Amino acid sequence: MTDLDNLRVVLVATRNPLNIGAVARAMSNFGVARLRVVNPYDAAFREARSAVGASGLLAKAEKYDNVAEAVADCKLVVGTTAATRRDLQQRLLRLDEATRTIKSQLKAGPVALLFGSERYGLSNEELSHCHWAMRIPTRSEHGSMNLGQAVAVCLYELIRRAATGTAAGAREKALAKSGEVERLTQQLFEVLQTSGYVKPRAAAATEENLRRMIRRMHLDAKDTVMWLGILRQIAWKVQAKERE
Amino acid sequence: MTDLDNLRVVLVATRNPLNIGAVARAMSNFGVARLRVVNPYDAAFREARSAVGASGLLAKAEKYDNVAEAVADCKLVVGTTAATRRDLQQRLLRLDEATRTIKSQLKAGPVALLFGSERYGLSNEELSHCHWAMRIPTRSEHGSMNLGQAVAVCLYELIRRAATGTAAGAREKALAKSGEVERLTQQLFEVLQTSGYVKPRAAAATEENLRRMIRRMHLDAKDTVMWLGILRQIAWKVQAKERE
Repeated sequence: MTDLDNLRVVLVATRNPLNIGAVARAMSNFGVARLRVVNPYDAAFREARSAVGASGLLAKAEKYDNVAEAVADCKLVVGTTAATRRDLQQRLLRLDEATRTIKSQLKAGPVALLFGSERYGLSNEELSHCHWAMRIPTRSEHGSMNLGQAVAVCLYELIRRAATGTAAGAREKALAKSGEVERLTQQLFEVLQTSGYVKPRAAAATEENLRRMIRRMHLDAKDTVMWLGILRQIAWKVQAKERE
Repeated sequence: MTDLDNLRVVLVATRNPLNIGAVARAMSNFGVARLRVVNPYDAAFREARSAVGASGLLAKAEKYDNVAEAVADCKLVVGTTAATRRDLQQRLLRLDEATRTIKSQLKAGPVALLFGSERYGLSNEELSHCHWAMRIPTRSEHGSMNLGQAVAVCLYELIRRAATGTAAGAREKALAKSGEVERLTQQLFEVLQTSGYVKPRAAAATEENLRRMIRRMHLDAKDTVMWLGILRQIAWKVQAKERE
């Protein structure tokens, strides 16, 4: 079991089955399994559940008649809201700030994350069940996000730093040895002499320029081999001409 | 003007008009204005544009026939991919790691963020136009995200720390525009065809290999010009031989 098993995503009065499906998909992407729906449009919930490819997650979604019941077992309840809301009675935190607290609470017990209806968001009554509210830092001119996208962004922020240990991206290039890079430099220089690119009087300066340019490429070992093959082939072709 | 004005969101072969609309909405939420579509299903693009509430952002979206043209003015091109992909030929960074580099490049010039089709993601050919790939850290069992949600998460990560103040990092290289780098790729490919390095049956694969290799070099504008001069001279010499 991970901390995320303690997270409940709670959708309140959702109207559009596609949005319910999109929320389920984002939850599955980020490893969150427990979906609760409060008072959804019945047809929407039925349709989302029966959609092709609907997940087991949707089949197991729990339906409640009101927010109070849906969050009854949770120790922390957080409501999401658009940045533009003016009548908010609650403490409002930015998603990244809020996430710190949510993560530490997830270690202790169930936490609910509430998302309101597509058109109106969470009502003041619904928000009154929340310990505080959080917002995604959208532009004030267009604060209201699509429901599925809002859930995806919130869940991403929650898992965002859990993964910092993975080495997938941290792997650095295995740079080529200097000797190999110098062989490449010499091969290029020779090709360019034969091709007439190198002016005899400026030969030394050109060679240095090439050397610096090739070092700036930070080639790894494999690419160095590829370049050597390329230049060998070109050299063969160019010198074939000279032999005639 | 903010750094985000330099960001281009590029959708490749998108099929579903709802997804194009969702992408436009997330862009508007996070203050990103420039949308480019490559080879979309025409009906999808038309429908997305004419949808009720479609934004000015969609009306101004630019349509391209291929990836090369869509990223020609960009200095950094980043492809997005699901975590599960096994045949990836590129360096792969996790979204939060990648974002650091993207943000510093946005200060210098246009950056393209590529998103592939809903069903297949980006092809290897499409990815070969990218400097590197990045992935959202989804579960390996269900790595593939909904397109609109993936865009929302990537843009969120980009604006995420804008509010907290980023430290000015080390000065980045003034990278060459993709159009120039592609010219270089084509020039090298031609020289190698004439030289007999390219086997006719493997021509497409070789071209993709060369494109990737050249992107890995992260050439700046000046070195790109130098390489073009070098290859032009070699091409002249090699073709002189053909003419005999």
